[in-house]
Amino acid sequence: MNSIHLICLGVQDLAQSRKFYRAIGFVEPNDEHANEIVFFNNTGTKLELFPYSELLKDIGLNATEHPFPKSFNGVTHAFNAKSKEEVDFIFKKALANGAQLIKQPVWGDWGGYSGYFSDPNGYYWEVAYSKDWQFDDNDMLVIE
Amino acid sequence: MNSIHLICLGVQDLAQSRKFYRAIGFVEPNDEHANEIVFFNNTGTKLELFPYSELLKDIGLNATEHPFPKSFNGVTHAFNAKSKEEVDFIFKKALANGAQLIKQPVWGDWGGYSGYFSDPNGYYWEVAYSKDWQFDDNDMLVIE
Repeated sequence: MNSIHLICLGVQDLAQSRKFYRAIGFVEPNDEHANEIVFFNNTGTKLELFPYSELLKDIGLNATEHPFPKSFNGVTHAFNAKSKEEVDFIFKKALANGAQLIKQPVWGDWGGYSGYFSDPNGYYWEVAYSKDWQFDDNDMLVIE
Repeated sequence: MNSIHLICLGVQDLAQSRKFYRAIGFVEPNDEHANEIVFFNNTGTKLELFPYSELLKDIGLNATEHPFPKSFNGVTHAFNAKSKEEVDFIFKKALANGAQLIKQPVWGDWGGYSGYFSDPNGYYWEVAYSKDWQFDDNDMLVIE
């Protein structure tokens, strides 16, 4: 196992979450099932949105023992931009579409520029830029 | 924003988590900082392990309001195998190395074979196989 194919976010309101991710740039194929489950055609590991209650059913968990997380859930997903301006543009777009500002982008002592927002469900995203990153032909990070 | 570059898992014990992901097949480059932060050289969005306490600091959260999640955190990451046998092999490997069985792989009415385990931190992974999936040259899912 040396690949990750899908990131599934269990969401509370599928239509609202779908609208948010489309607004910040994620692209869907034509999909007749998009009212039940959403797959985005993004680069890299694909993003999937699935109602939290359905995800619990699929896993076999009950909602009493596993309520929807109310605080930070321990995981962040990151988009690595190609410029500081792109980071700022994405934050503006995300906040205008229902994201919550968690940390305003700042230059860090590691040499990069980054911040965090949470999506309408409370899932955290880091958007960052560093001149030191390299990307491969599929726009994925080169880890050396 | 139409890419995902990094999946960061905030982990309670970096050395233990690193050992687990190496055991199930994730490959690291030589990295002198692997005692502080781990990046795997996997296909697709890259997997990163970072101590939970450090991740909280980076985001600017405090541990009282954001304790380490004790129940399902709402997110799953999936590995899509090329055969039923590969799914079984990965489950065997994961469970032998400290994963917890959440759902034994079964054939579902959607035509595929899949199950869930959680890693030593309690983060959920789905491992699945379906004859209907297509993969591109980078081993990423084709979403049509």
